[in-house]
Amino acid sequence: MLRLGILGCGRIGQVHANSIRRIEGAELAAVADLSSEAASACAARFKTVVRSIDDILNDEDIDAVVIATSTSTHFDLVTAAARAGKAIFCEKPIDLSSERVRSCIQAVNAAGVAFMTAFNQRFDPHFNALQARVRAGEIGEVETVSIVSRDPAPPPVSYIKTSGGLFRDMMIHDLDMARFVLDEEPVTVFAVGSNLIEAGIKEAGDVDTAAVILTTASGRICQVTNSRRTTYGYDKRLEVHGSKGMLRVSNVLENLVEQAGSNGFGQATAQAFFLERFEAAYLAEMRHFVEAVSSGTAPVPGAEDGLRAQLIADAATQSWREGRPVEIPR
Amino acid sequence: MLRLGILGCGRIGQVHANSIRRIEGAELAAVADLSSEAASACAARFKTVVRSIDDILNDEDIDAVVIATSTSTHFDLVTAAARAGKAIFCEKPIDLSSERVRSCIQAVNAAGVAFMTAFNQRFDPHFNALQARVRAGEIGEVETVSIVSRDPAPPPVSYIKTSGGLFRDMMIHDLDMARFVLDEEPVTVFAVGSNLIEAGIKEAGDVDTAAVILTTASGRICQVTNSRRTTYGYDKRLEVHGSKGMLRVSNVLENLVEQAGSNGFGQATAQAFFLERFEAAYLAEMRHFVEAVSSGTAPVPGAEDGLRAQLIADAATQSWREGRPVEIPR
Amino acid sequence: MLRLGILGCGRIGQVHANSIRRIEGAELAAVADLSSEAASACAARFKTVVRSIDDILNDEDIDAVVIATSTSTHFDLVTAAARAGKAIFCEKPIDLSSERVRSCIQAVNAAGVAFMTAFNQRFDPHFNALQARVRAGEIGEVETVSIVSRDPAPPPVSYIKTSGGLFRDMMIHDLDMARFVLDEEPVTVFAVGSNLIEAGIKEAGDVDTAAVILTTASGRICQVTNSRRTTYGYDKRLEVHGSKGMLRVSNVLENLVEQAGSNGFGQATAQAFFLERFEAAYLAEMRHFVEAVSSGTAPVPGAEDGLRAQLIADAATQSWREGRPVEIPR
Amino acid sequence: MLRLGILGCGRIGQVHANSIRRIEGAELAAVADLSSEAASACAARFKTVVRSIDDILNDEDIDAVVIATSTSTHFDLVTAAARAGKAIFCEKPIDLSSERVRSCIQAVNAAGVAFMTAFNQRFDPHFNALQARVRAGEIGEVETVSIVSRDPAPPPVSYIKTSGGLFRDMMIHDLDMARFVLDEEPVTVFAVGSNLIEAGIKEAGDVDTAAVILTTASGRICQVTNSRRTTYGYDKRLEVHGSKGMLRVSNVLENLVEQAGSNGFGQATAQAFFLERFEAAYLAEMRHFVEAVSSGTAPVPGAEDGLRAQLIADAATQSWREGRPVEIPR
Repeated sequence: MLRLGILGCGRIGQVHANSIRRIEGAELAAVADLSSEAASACAARFKTVVRSIDDILNDEDIDAVVIATSTSTHFDLVTAAARAGKAIFCEKPIDLSSERVRSCIQAVNAAGVAFMTAFNQRFDPHFNALQARVRAGEIGEVETVSIVSRDPAPPPVSYIKTSGGLFRDMMIHDLDMARFVLDEEPVTVFAVGSNLIEAGIKEAGDVDTAAVILTTASGRICQVTNSRRTTYGYDKRLEVHGSKGMLRVSNVLENLVEQAGSNGFGQATAQAFFLERFEAAYLAEMRHFVEAVSSGTAPVPGAEDGLRAQLIADAATQSWREGRPVEIPR
Repeated sequence: MLRLGILGCGRIGQVHANSIRRIEGAELAAVADLSSEAASACAARFKTVVRSIDDILNDEDIDAVVIATSTSTHFDLVTAAARAGKAIFCEKPIDLSSERVRSCIQAVNAAGVAFMTAFNQRFDPHFNALQARVRAGEIGEVETVSIVSRDPAPPPVSYIKTSGGLFRDMMIHDLDMARFVLDEEPVTVFAVGSNLIEAGIKEAGDVDTAAVILTTASGRICQVTNSRRTTYGYDKRLEVHGSKGMLRVSNVLENLVEQAGSNGFGQATAQAFFLERFEAAYLAEMRHFVEAVSSGTAPVPGAEDGLRAQLIADAATQSWREGRPVEIPR
Repeated sequence: MLRLGILGCGRIGQVHANSIRRIEGAELAAVADLSSEAASACAARFKTVVRSIDDILNDEDIDAVVIATSTSTHFDLVTAAARAGKAIFCEKPIDLSSERVRSCIQAVNAAGVAFMTAFNQRFDPHFNALQARVRAGEIGEVETVSIVSRDPAPPPVSYIKTSGGLFRDMMIHDLDMARFVLDEEPVTVFAVGSNLIEAGIKEAGDVDTAAVILTTASGRICQVTNSRRTTYGYDKRLEVHGSKGMLRVSNVLENLVEQAGSNGFGQATAQAFFLERFEAAYLAEMRHFVEAVSSGTAPVPGAEDGLRAQLIADAATQSWREGRPVEIPR
Repeated sequence: MLRLGILGCGRIGQVHANSIRRIEGAELAAVADLSSEAASACAARFKTVVRSIDDILNDEDIDAVVIATSTSTHFDLVTAAARAGKAIFCEKPIDLSSERVRSCIQAVNAAGVAFMTAFNQRFDPHFNALQARVRAGEIGEVETVSIVSRDPAPPPVSYIKTSGGLFRDMMIHDLDMARFVLDEEPVTVFAVGSNLIEAGIKEAGDVDTAAVILTTASGRICQVTNSRRTTYGYDKRLEVHGSKGMLRVSNVLENLVEQAGSNGFGQATAQAFFLERFEAAYLAEMRHFVEAVSSGTAPVPGAEDGLRAQLIADAATQSWREGRPVEIPR
């Protein structure tokens, strides 16, 4: 039985609490939050207790922590948890500064604790099955990858001001997915960005629409398209083209009812947003973490994967600002 | 070069004229029609000449005739054309009386001329490819067949009064298709019919909605659904389930544009009706006729196929009227 | 908080235990099973206690029972539970004898307890959304319904010997679905059945492939196709055609990965069988039961719905045996 | 009746001859080719006469010419035909040198003759319907465009050596399509290219896989992906995302037969290549030319459209070579 404590009882912390409750071999030992009200509500809902972060970190009966607090606190919590010998499941991004991410990695490695970066989309059953088939060689050598992510609506401008911007808060998932299926590290990135949706985003110094081309040393090409708005739900697609064929995952719809009438044939909108679309993925990623830690193997994606995605997002941001392709740091 | 004369310059006669013009190795030698106006317009459009039916039948340079006149004239024309030694392409039904169809078959056999019944839907590229794969054993032994035909709108009641009714004028195509893919003759039929669409059809003694179950000696089952109305174009589908798998053809849409918006995902309506849906089939069936006659092989479907479909339609009509399953005559 | 006891800890009892655990406002108070081993394992897995059926029925703190034992025991358990004043959730069929089902209904009505028949497929999110749209008038008046159910593989012949046969153990779900969407009671049924798959089924006096036509008083027509075998997973489809359009639900696939290669485009098989296909439906039906009982409203489908579906299944069985359409008893 | 002469009787010349024969109001007056054998065969097939290019240009009864000779001859033929007062339908590219294209435009404008550049893909019924709906405002303001073109197999290296390379001979169609749907001129292009398929293409100084990002002044973004190889037919797709929704056209398959079996559900490959995929488009573009010239309106796309697409292709080539975004000349 792996006993976990959750640090941060916001929306995503509750998602993880719900997952833990559904996993045999895992137990939600405690939750902590700056807001005692939020902590209490969460504890009540998931039938566990509220404790302070320090208590959780110092409790030898707690094996692992889930860091689901705001990004600015991740650095301190990761280093403290590593020192306390806890296995760490950390929400992305680990930190907005890649230098500080490197420090976290050092702390984790020094402590020898397990670390998992929460790129949940790798655990979506559809994307995961696709990647396994790519890896198994079904389509031969990967040649091009295309990823589309369009959110149903932009986040509040206040969020954007601290998020690091579209490339770092939104596209980073796609950049990790690119690494997941490309089977080779991207070495250069070219990015363009536009303000087509909301004036406030522009005023905040960010874009709401963007496209990126990544290339690898052997010449593989990946294209990513992002938008902060659709009218038809969460538009999330992945396509990999290789020497022997193509694999893709299209949108997951709200339901499978099809209608026909004088306007033609129709189907539902795509699932509303990531909480619905990746419900199964959240459960699967936590199950993977629990199983990896329980069996003493390294969870994947690890801290290095978190760093690599962030370095690409940083380079994309720079490319967009400077209007030129940028080499991705090794 | 096969030289053909067309008897009957209505809509379907013109379809065949257009096909003949597009087939290498075929020449439209003449057209005939009761209406000299219709004949002239057709001749002008397809760059051929108007002649009388007798002239066409007596002209030794004409090899084949296409009988596209009204059903009541088929019997006389078929027997005359057979006597004149012409290869015969005859619109369905050959005659509303199966006794008279048997007479036609005798006349054709006695004269030793080629005869083809115009079940054009067998030549649709999609249905044809499906049937070839069934025949090749791809799905093993056929177990069940499902056929859906829904017309966009009912025909005029005046047409229904002379057509023989839904089972004979509309479902007969599906009954032929059933024979085409079942690979075994149906032996019993059970039919139900309803009046859900237009009062005039009921007054004319016919139904506008119907369903049929056919069974074969070995236990294969075929279901047919017919309706005289849809709001989304011509609904025409075929599905064959066998011991090793399933093959099906769904609707052909007006175009392949897909849209997404707040109402979900959408596509065009199905193609409007049979002239659009079976455009390629009309050309292919005439090409088959021309090639078969030119090479001295028997065109398929032949007169016997026309008879068999009609006997099933008659039995279905009887089943509907009497409310019991009916054995199909051998 | 509604406290429930589960009677019968087999596969389906465990499905319901798992559902209850996931519903806020419900608590699994106890489980019972003839096999103490099965009961203990179930109690351990779902963190509850084992008690005898009598104890459960006599415990005033238990509000409701889930009857998931073998069919032959349902009659006694329903009448006992009704007398004990428990709300009853009963697996289908209530009993193989419609006379005894009527007795159950009397007992339930006399006791004034809530009763729900477990036609879980009504709660499938796709079928449920379809039915709601039919009911809301989106496609006008219902004209024809088509239901396809094909199991991936036949059950053991031993099961078939006591199940009541294909029409009663398998098609009954489709017959209930027909009632759910037809919006009018079927009045006649015609059924055909064949033995195309497994000799043992024939020896047991049952069929493995079947088709049915139902008609209503106003002329609505419903066709059902059943097979005990597919090679591509659980084939479960529903289509409703009305005066203003059509609504349908096609197969739910294992995952949404599409591949393209020299054999064309491909997708996964359909979900394996009903436990996967109706996972969400099992949860939703139990949630409905809990909410209805908690709020004092009658759960639907009720005992009468169980009876009606069974009467149609009985009539279909008779129709198949006698080779003629049969009137469905009122 | 518009009388046309075809200059060049190769594969594409014959496609146009076939189109002309099917258009009411058009007549194929003569054909010319350097190879008298090719010219004779073409004339025989399409029932017209062989004449020299000079004869055709000097014949006052010929209204228009179709230039379907090799690219290097276009410049001379366009200027000669313009001087001769013929309406001109010219295969793309007009010339590999944009300077010479500008000269052609001057000659055409000076002569006041009609000129159409053969970007046939604009006339594909699916793409055309999509563009009309974009233009009609159905999806609001265009934000992003995605175009995928993958050929089934690379052309001979000998062709590539004179074609101007992938961006000019293949992607140019997509660049024109981008202009067609963007509703605003692209101002910058960034291109990457790789050699993943055939060594000979690299030796010839070209790439076989490429991706491009175009941006417009208002911030619209278009991505194009090209590959010289697929295993599943001609992969040709278009997607436009706007403020109110999305429109797209996916692949056109060989036929609509779907199969299901133990490997899942499957459909045919995409149509083999452009001659099949754009069969209807070739007819529609010629019909447009005939109707425009006959009615005295300017055919679209015109010479300027040919020039604009080529300037983008040139800029993309330069971007790929120099590894930086390039401004597209006005």
